[in-house]
Amino acid sequence: MNHEPLLVGVDAGGTSTRAVLTDPAGRCLGYGVGGRGNPISAGPDRAAAGVLDAIRGALATTGRDLADVDVIVPAMAGMRASGGGDWLMQRLAPAGFRGTLRFESDLLAAYFSGAAAPLGYALVSGTGACVIRVQDGRIDGAGDGLGWLLGDRGSGFWIGHAIARAAVQDLDGTGPATALTDRVLAHYELARTEVRTDGRQLELEELIGRLYGHPPIELAGLAPYAFDVDDAVAHGILTSAGAHLADTLSAVLAGPGPVVIGGSVLTRSGPVRDAFLARLGAAGEGLDLRSVSDGAVGAAVLAVRAAGGAADDAVLGRLTESVAAFR
Amino acid sequence: MNHEPLLVGVDAGGTSTRAVLTDPAGRCLGYGVGGRGNPISAGPDRAAAGVLDAIRGALATTGRDLADVDVIVPAMAGMRASGGGDWLMQRLAPAGFRGTLRFESDLLAAYFSGAAAPLGYALVSGTGACVIRVQDGRIDGAGDGLGWLLGDRGSGFWIGHAIARAAVQDLDGTGPATALTDRVLAHYELARTEVRTDGRQLELEELIGRLYGHPPIELAGLAPYAFDVDDAVAHGILTSAGAHLADTLSAVLAGPGPVVIGGSVLTRSGPVRDAFLARLGAAGEGLDLRSVSDGAVGAAVLAVRAAGGAADDAVLGRLTESVAAFR
Repeated sequence: MNHEPLLVGVDAGGTSTRAVLTDPAGRCLGYGVGGRGNPISAGPDRAAAGVLDAIRGALATTGRDLADVDVIVPAMAGMRASGGGDWLMQRLAPAGFRGTLRFESDLLAAYFSGAAAPLGYALVSGTGACVIRVQDGRIDGAGDGLGWLLGDRGSGFWIGHAIARAAVQDLDGTGPATALTDRVLAHYELARTEVRTDGRQLELEELIGRLYGHPPIELAGLAPYAFDVDDAVAHGILTSAGAHLADTLSAVLAGPGPVVIGGSVLTRSGPVRDAFLARLGAAGEGLDLRSVSDGAVGAAVLAVRAAGGAADDAVLGRLTESVAAFR
Repeated sequence: MNHEPLLVGVDAGGTSTRAVLTDPAGRCLGYGVGGRGNPISAGPDRAAAGVLDAIRGALATTGRDLADVDVIVPAMAGMRASGGGDWLMQRLAPAGFRGTLRFESDLLAAYFSGAAAPLGYALVSGTGACVIRVQDGRIDGAGDGLGWLLGDRGSGFWIGHAIARAAVQDLDGTGPATALTDRVLAHYELARTEVRTDGRQLELEELIGRLYGHPPIELAGLAPYAFDVDDAVAHGILTSAGAHLADTLSAVLAGPGPVVIGGSVLTRSGPVRDAFLARLGAAGEGLDLRSVSDGAVGAAVLAVRAAGGAADDAVLGRLTESVAAFR
């Protein structure tokens, strides 16, 4: 059957996955969602299921199937460096897919969700935090994205970690009192006591046990409390987060260009964004900041490019408009 | 056989263990060493072997054996809160021990290694960092000791972690250049390259892989580089460590008394100690700082106390002198 090429961009994330079916001109033909799509965090079986669910959702109303798709571009964290897409191809091939599979960076998809300029930046602060500089469609420089142990300064993990540390320092008296402490105790279903052992409150001992009893990355789940609580400690944490994100961006800046902002930490207004702009100061005044909700549009732009099309403002504009109509 | 009570104090650490055999007056009768003695980090079998080796070493030249010992006081981290000494009693009983086994805090043993005053402090900064306030022979207050994820500010881990973060920030350009970076790369047998992928140097990608490939606590092994390297970044890390330790002590201070300093970070002269004293300022001028090499003497003092004796300056003085003669 002779048909215009069908392209799929997939924005595969740690908690959910989005697929955009598009033609080479950037007209969205279908949109689907799936579960966790990153094999590093979700495991290959679950991630492949998340990606396939999203792609099938995008094809559902078109009367086409995977055998008709020419190009699939999954954009996800960590897959370009680690290489190897067998975990996904093993699921796509039996479903009839005979086309090209090309992995791209989730950060590049974030960039192309909001910009198509030759020089620009993407700043994503969700659970982790990273800034990339994009030059001629490729990642030309990166700041942070170093993970929870080494960086991700200003990320949701970073904020949650700071909250946990503020709570235990409140409880042992090495830090100031903060309303965050009661939120953290409640989060772990603990209550304040009058019991002291070896110089420590019982609830501190119990909280330490809880905090070490889970993978560190789960501290990101505490981050919302900093936005809920209105005291000096919470405000200080958010202000520091914003300043860190500004510093990471500043380290990567190499000329004027759009700055695409992704992730939940910086896209909402409030102390983080205020501190981010204040820290950038004069350097921030000339910046063209654009927030995006996810990388779905950008993944589709990358799929158009993988099929030999242009990743330009015309394609971006058509995809932005036509994807929005499907959501 | 009628004999004067035989008491054993054990300073059981994460890397080695020391045992002191003493009479109730604090006269050391024997001294022995063993391997790792903490069941939390070394596992119960290995820890019990370390403790028994040390005790047998202390008994070796006396013609006595475990059946003659009346009291054993192992001082170690985390055992009082976790309770349960079965892992050790199961090894002591078959060896003939019929006496009293009482666990004490390693921090209290550090205190009694250098002081016997009714009110005083112990500040230990080794792999971890903690300050206790001792009142009438008991731990009355504690600051930090929150572990690598939540605190241990100014510890060997804290310094090593700061070094690792400084190195990756040097390599990705979000932090200043430092001679620490080459030390860290060499530590992990990595070399600088001209290869860049997705905006990152290859050696940064490899270093990140190495750093996440080991348990975080192993970052403490990087700490010595901060003392070796003489640049602003290394100096800044050590200066911050000293200030953190001073702040933790300040939070626990509740009156004049000796401050017993243990662990390798603060006992040596240099930037950490200088910053520690500078940060304490006037509050530090009246403090009676005393460094101890380990908690062996204090564990023996606690054994004397467990047998009904006094943990006073006379016992401390005799033990300090007589243990030194055995080492």
